[in-house]
Amino acid sequence: MISRVLSSELPKHVGERVTIAGWLHRRRELKSVTFLVIRDRAGLAQVVLPTADADPIGEETVLAVEGLVVANDQAPSGAELTEPALRQLSGPAEPPPFDLYRPAVTAALPTILDHAPTTLRHPVLRAGLEVAAASAAGFRAAMVQSGCTEIFTPKIVESATEGGANVFRLDYFGRPGYLAQSPQFYKQAMVGVFERVFEVGPVFRAEPHDTGRHLAQYTSLDAEFGFIADHLDVMPFCRDAVAGMVESVRERAGLAMRTLDATLPEVPAEIPHLHFTDAMDLISAATGEDVTGEPDLAPAHERWLFEWAAREHGSDLLFVTGYPLASKPFYTHADLRRPRYSNGFDLLFRGTEIVTGGQRLHRHEDYLAALAARGLDPAPFEGYLQVFRHGMPPHGGFAIGLERWTALLTGAANVRQVTLFPRDLHRLSP
Amino acid sequence: MISRVLSSELPKHVGERVTIAGWLHRRRELKSVTFLVIRDRAGLAQVVLPTADADPIGEETVLAVEGLVVANDQAPSGAELTEPALRQLSGPAEPPPFDLYRPAVTAALPTILDHAPTTLRHPVLRAGLEVAAASAAGFRAAMVQSGCTEIFTPKIVESATEGGANVFRLDYFGRPGYLAQSPQFYKQAMVGVFERVFEVGPVFRAEPHDTGRHLAQYTSLDAEFGFIADHLDVMPFCRDAVAGMVESVRERAGLAMRTLDATLPEVPAEIPHLHFTDAMDLISAATGEDVTGEPDLAPAHERWLFEWAAREHGSDLLFVTGYPLASKPFYTHADLRRPRYSNGFDLLFRGTEIVTGGQRLHRHEDYLAALAARGLDPAPFEGYLQVFRHGMPPHGGFAIGLERWTALLTGAANVRQVTLFPRDLHRLSP
Repeated sequence: MISRVLSSELPKHVGERVTIAGWLHRRRELKSVTFLVIRDRAGLAQVVLPTADADPIGEETVLAVEGLVVANDQAPSGAELTEPALRQLSGPAEPPPFDLYRPAVTAALPTILDHAPTTLRHPVLRAGLEVAAASAAGFRAAMVQSGCTEIFTPKIVESATEGGANVFRLDYFGRPGYLAQSPQFYKQAMVGVFERVFEVGPVFRAEPHDTGRHLAQYTSLDAEFGFIADHLDVMPFCRDAVAGMVESVRERAGLAMRTLDATLPEVPAEIPHLHFTDAMDLISAATGEDVTGEPDLAPAHERWLFEWAAREHGSDLLFVTGYPLASKPFYTHADLRRPRYSNGFDLLFRGTEIVTGGQRLHRHEDYLAALAARGLDPAPFEGYLQVFRHGMPPHGGFAIGLERWTALLTGAANVRQVTLFPRDLHRLSP
Repeated sequence: MISRVLSSELPKHVGERVTIAGWLHRRRELKSVTFLVIRDRAGLAQVVLPTADADPIGEETVLAVEGLVVANDQAPSGAELTEPALRQLSGPAEPPPFDLYRPAVTAALPTILDHAPTTLRHPVLRAGLEVAAASAAGFRAAMVQSGCTEIFTPKIVESATEGGANVFRLDYFGRPGYLAQSPQFYKQAMVGVFERVFEVGPVFRAEPHDTGRHLAQYTSLDAEFGFIADHLDVMPFCRDAVAGMVESVRERAGLAMRTLDATLPEVPAEIPHLHFTDAMDLISAATGEDVTGEPDLAPAHERWLFEWAAREHGSDLLFVTGYPLASKPFYTHADLRRPRYSNGFDLLFRGTEIVTGGQRLHRHEDYLAALAARGLDPAPFEGYLQVFRHGMPPHGGFAIGLERWTALLTGAANVRQVTLFPRDLHRLSP
């Protein structure tokens, strides 16, 4: 390895000559002395040298700097390098599209995204990705803790399971194939093998919507559980997933959260829940607007419920259960006592839906009935339905969109700010 | 939840009435008594009842069975359920395509794959997937331990980075897009942000080869490290990845390995390594065949080296370094002392290459020279090259194919045996 100490380790080496290595984050030239701030994966380190000796090296050039460590409370890591000898490890860097050393990101989103390999070096943009990585790790740990086995499912499929037009079509050795919109079928099938499974992987939606929430590819955190009584048994697993994500972010990305000035929610041992009809009654009573006949929650209703949950339960998180069956996919299990409503749930976080889940049908005849009720031909679903001919237990699960979660957690206005090289209607590179 | 104890917990409940739940794994009817073997995620449990009381329920039907736990050394978990009351949780199951209760898998591979949601319930087929899951978890843990940040990169890209014809083309909102053949460009770019990164994700190859080793989609375990001196600095990270995978399989999939009668390798603290030219000299001297001019190792040579490493170093693992540069991708760094050879390496495991890695170019001008030397137009690579204009440290990394690793580790003759719903030239479902 290039022999070096990390910026954060400098205070341990006061009085020694050591080498640090990283990117020239900032060059600040005064009349007699010049400060070079070096950025490495651990943080920032300051190098001081006489301006007369300072070559005009551009920011983002990669350097190894050998020098004497001197304590300095004003320096980023509490110590700085003096009497430095510089060695350039990259070619001279072209200037980044905006100043990476300024605390705030001063570029517009398209500029950030066009030059992402460089702009993501900014501590604020980098921080969002750290939160995403920590969240994924926390999800996995919680699901393993819950007894799940990890699966890796096909992303090229024969037909569009979630239906609709939002599917990418490709040439699969001369015949049509589609990019998977979700691992729904596969995770259900694998309940038959492992009872409890999870996956962290990409899913693809040919989203024609050009909004701050929609992506053509996102990372789906999926889990599915067998031998449940109903959806109420899935919700504690979902709570544990979210709690694990929060805990992992706290442990692994605490500095990133402070950089973003973002706060973690408290995840109650039991997240409060409310039936869809009760939510509509509450909203109608409070606002005077009769929404009891609506098929779904509007964004304004979700925000009202957020404030209600915060007020009544001190919780940033709220489950809404029992959405009307008609608004849910065909594989959704009905509430047997109120068949117009589903055994489905959404988890709202700070007023936005971040998880969708519920109990699925598990009997072959129930699938045939559900498809018939929607006027759908069962033939294209035969591959999906096959598994239910061979004995499937009552089961259910949920899916969390990693990027949307990360955006909400960090307060990013646009999900693209916390997505590594986002794909959308207009963007296919970098 | 459906109130139940797992099969493995039965011995703790001798003398009590409990409920177990799972699939009817096997039904064995004798003249006076019938044995029902129930399979759940923890293993097998035996239920005994008078044949006169036994309904003719088919194998794979999902049941909850309440009964009295009685110790029995002959029963799978050391205890069995007597005086049972059965409740059927699924519809009656159709018979699986082969008997899942027989110790050996008796079906041919196409049958197994055509009916994978059911056939994967067989303990032998399920075991391979458990080994894969444990391997992935071990890889991640080792890479986090090595200071890497996890990344999730785009799987739809603007051009085919690894080149060649083996790329899937798709319609991306009216313009051409391609499925990523590897995260190579993205992991290199992210070295500029995090220094050390890893990814576990799908990659896609439109492989026209119909062999036991090639898949159209596989899971790539990728890592990349900045601030290396050369490829020799990457190899210890690769060693740690493999050691972490082995350790994780030992901890989490020990029973699966025993089911498969497979043995884990010892991973030496330092895996022996051999330069390509030295390997060729050794093989030439030992076999009498002059292979010193060959551009690559043939499978027979890899097997010879496996035996050599086992004999000389007691190791199932061997690094071969310095493959001829011409046989490596354009981004490969040359050995500056012997420019015909690369700073690349392969890791051979039991005579088969499981990892490819090495040092990459990091200077913009070196990329231009490398493309020119191969007669390649730099224009299509402009997006790739852009990152090297902004300061990149010396870096390198490696990639491990999860399914190929799992096949080798478990002794599977065909990688499809240990791949969840494989995709190949002929197969797009289930």
